[in-house]
Amino acid sequence: SADTTPIRATLFPGDGIGPEIAESVKQVFRTAEVPIEWEEHYVGTEVDPRTQSFLTWESLESVRRNGVGLKGPMATPIGKGHRSLNLTLRKELNLYANVRPCYSLPGYKTRYDDVNLITIRENTEGEYSGLEHQVVRGVVESLKIITRQASLRVAEYAFHYAKAHGRERVSAIHKANIMQRTDGLFLKCCREVAEKYPEIVYEEVVIDNCCMMLVKNPALFDVLVMPNLYGDIISDLCAGLIGGLGLTPSCNIGEGGIALAEAVHGSAPDIAGKNLANPTALLLSAVTMLRHLELHDKADRIQNAILNTIAEGKYRTADLGGSSTTTDFTKAICDHL
Amino acid sequence: SADTTPIRATLFPGDGIGPEIAESVKQVFRTAEVPIEWEEHYVGTEVDPRTQSFLTWESLESVRRNGVGLKGPMATPIGKGHRSLNLTLRKELNLYANVRPCYSLPGYKTRYDDVNLITIRENTEGEYSGLEHQVVRGVVESLKIITRQASLRVAEYAFHYAKAHGRERVSAIHKANIMQRTDGLFLKCCREVAEKYPEIVYEEVVIDNCCMMLVKNPALFDVLVMPNLYGDIISDLCAGLIGGLGLTPSCNIGEGGIALAEAVHGSAPDIAGKNLANPTALLLSAVTMLRHLELHDKADRIQNAILNTIAEGKYRTADLGGSSTTTDFTKAICDHL
Ligand SMILES: CC(C)[C@H](C(=O)O)[C@@H](O)C(=O)O
Ligand SMILES: CC(C)[C@H](C(=O)O)[C@@H](O)C(=O)O
Repeated sequence: SADTTPIRATLFPGDGIGPEIAESVKQVFRTAEVPIEWEEHYVGTEVDPRTQSFLTWESLESVRRNGVGLKGPMATPIGKGHRSLNLTLRKELNLYANVRPCYSLPGYKTRYDDVNLITIRENTEGEYSGLEHQVVRGVVESLKIITRQASLRVAEYAFHYAKAHGRERVSAIHKANIMQRTDGLFLKCCREVAEKYPEIVYEEVVIDNCCMMLVKNPALFDVLVMPNLYGDIISDLCAGLIGGLGLTPSCNIGEGGIALAEAVHGSAPDIAGKNLANPTALLLSAVTMLRHLELHDKADRIQNAILNTIAEGKYRTADLGGSSTTTDFTKAICDHL
Repeated sequence: SADTTPIRATLFPGDGIGPEIAESVKQVFRTAEVPIEWEEHYVGTEVDPRTQSFLTWESLESVRRNGVGLKGPMATPIGKGHRSLNLTLRKELNLYANVRPCYSLPGYKTRYDDVNLITIRENTEGEYSGLEHQVVRGVVESLKIITRQASLRVAEYAFHYAKAHGRERVSAIHKANIMQRTDGLFLKCCREVAEKYPEIVYEEVVIDNCCMMLVKNPALFDVLVMPNLYGDIISDLCAGLIGGLGLTPSCNIGEGGIALAEAVHGSAPDIAGKNLANPTALLLSAVTMLRHLELHDKADRIQNAILNTIAEGKYRTADLGGSSTTTDFTKAICDHL
């Protein structure tokens, strides 16, 4: 069709280096002529009574309406009783799966050159229930909650993703030898879904063993699906294999097909405003957003430009051992487009 | 003194390859003239009513009486309601700290050559409470329990260990940004103990970040102390950095000064009885037992003989890429003594 109406997407530049790396994404998208119109939203400075957080009601509505968004780092204001903004977003938008593709970047040397895996993390429950209590002094309890509904939902997403992306294997990560009922339920749900995907190899790996295998030979893994905390741990471990959170994209999938891509690194207040930040994680996250929108041509073009710029090695930011500014690195990517 | 009464120590050869690697330890100890007399105990084939497990009452009494022991891999018999033998031992003997020295082995190449750290894991509570329930169908809960008593105890051990071994830094690993009360209590206890050791640097590292740092640069860490599950995960991750569980010693410390050293790898039933097993983990665990007994000369001599044999590379078992038998490898170590 000749429909040239731009797709509207929400943009949270975020705090610290957020605005600079968001600017980089906007520039790369403009240069690549991506048909996206950004709706920019900043975190408020006061609690919005409708969200009970610093996130404004308008910003959440924007993501719900658009169905897609991109988010920079958000620094949760310090003070009593303020929920983390990241957790609030997950909860309010029901972002049930956190998806992180993790692959060795050609030309950027780490101890590993053979990483190519996807971590898919349940993002709403488990150890993140927030339910903790102390009855006897000096004895504190936290509740980990695993539900059939959330486990099936993330397992479905993992297998669907594996099939859609031509992946061969899904590994469910667990500690069901100890938490037989909670992690046991998670595994049971994964098994049920696995049966509907006979073409995908399904396996179960205990988390301690998984971490050992990952550092010995990450090529053993393809798609990993897991409860919340294991996903938190393993996705960061995997990011470490290829160079850190500054290089790894992340995308959150919510009910109703919402996709909120995000850079998972911090807001780096020490270098904010100095034109030193590395926009790679946010750029690659924006690429996952394009894939979600099935704009694969644009996604491929931008991803290649980013990877080629890094591989070439001429323009790299300080965190990667170079001395480029954010704007020079961004310009180099645009030149590769 | 001229006291030549041998020290009595309990030996659980364990299952699968256990007896072969235990034989290796006995031979090395004989050759090095270690003044130890082993009391050998095997796991029973029926539940002992006094321990309510396959562990015999006599074997537990032996460890309690001797105060030191060495344990090979134990395969928990499959069947309804049988508690893991490892967990039973931890519980019955109140083995509150699991200590794993982890260092790069000279000459045995992995992606890392600069690992030199100690993981100290709380071994009795946390996510291992065994308390799980389902009230609403499809909604299951596990309880994580952190107590002031157990947290202080393991923190005390960690700082004591750091000081006694000339270590400079203790890192407490946690996820108190999410589990504010349980992991928060753990941190509070670590801080209290840290104040008594002003000469030791104390820091707190979130577990996801810790895993990322470990795979990027393990030399950043020295002594790590953490709740049960994080210890389970991180100790295996660290073992992976230097080659796997076949190479890493482990020692459990209990109330009243009990030390039960153990190989933490599996019983490898596929190669059991074939003279192919690698005894390194059990040998190095036996060395930690000697250090606990302050037999440092013997410990040094044996440890050097093991490391030199591996470094030389002429005799290595199949898991390390060689073709030596267990007995040839053991003989090579004895020749180095
Ligand atoms: C900041 C923290 C609450 C968060 C988490 O634990 O989920 C972070 O580690 C992440 O992975 O997004
Ligand atoms: C086998 C299992 C119960 C055990 C644990 O989780 O503690 C093991 O992984 C260990 O580290 O000794």
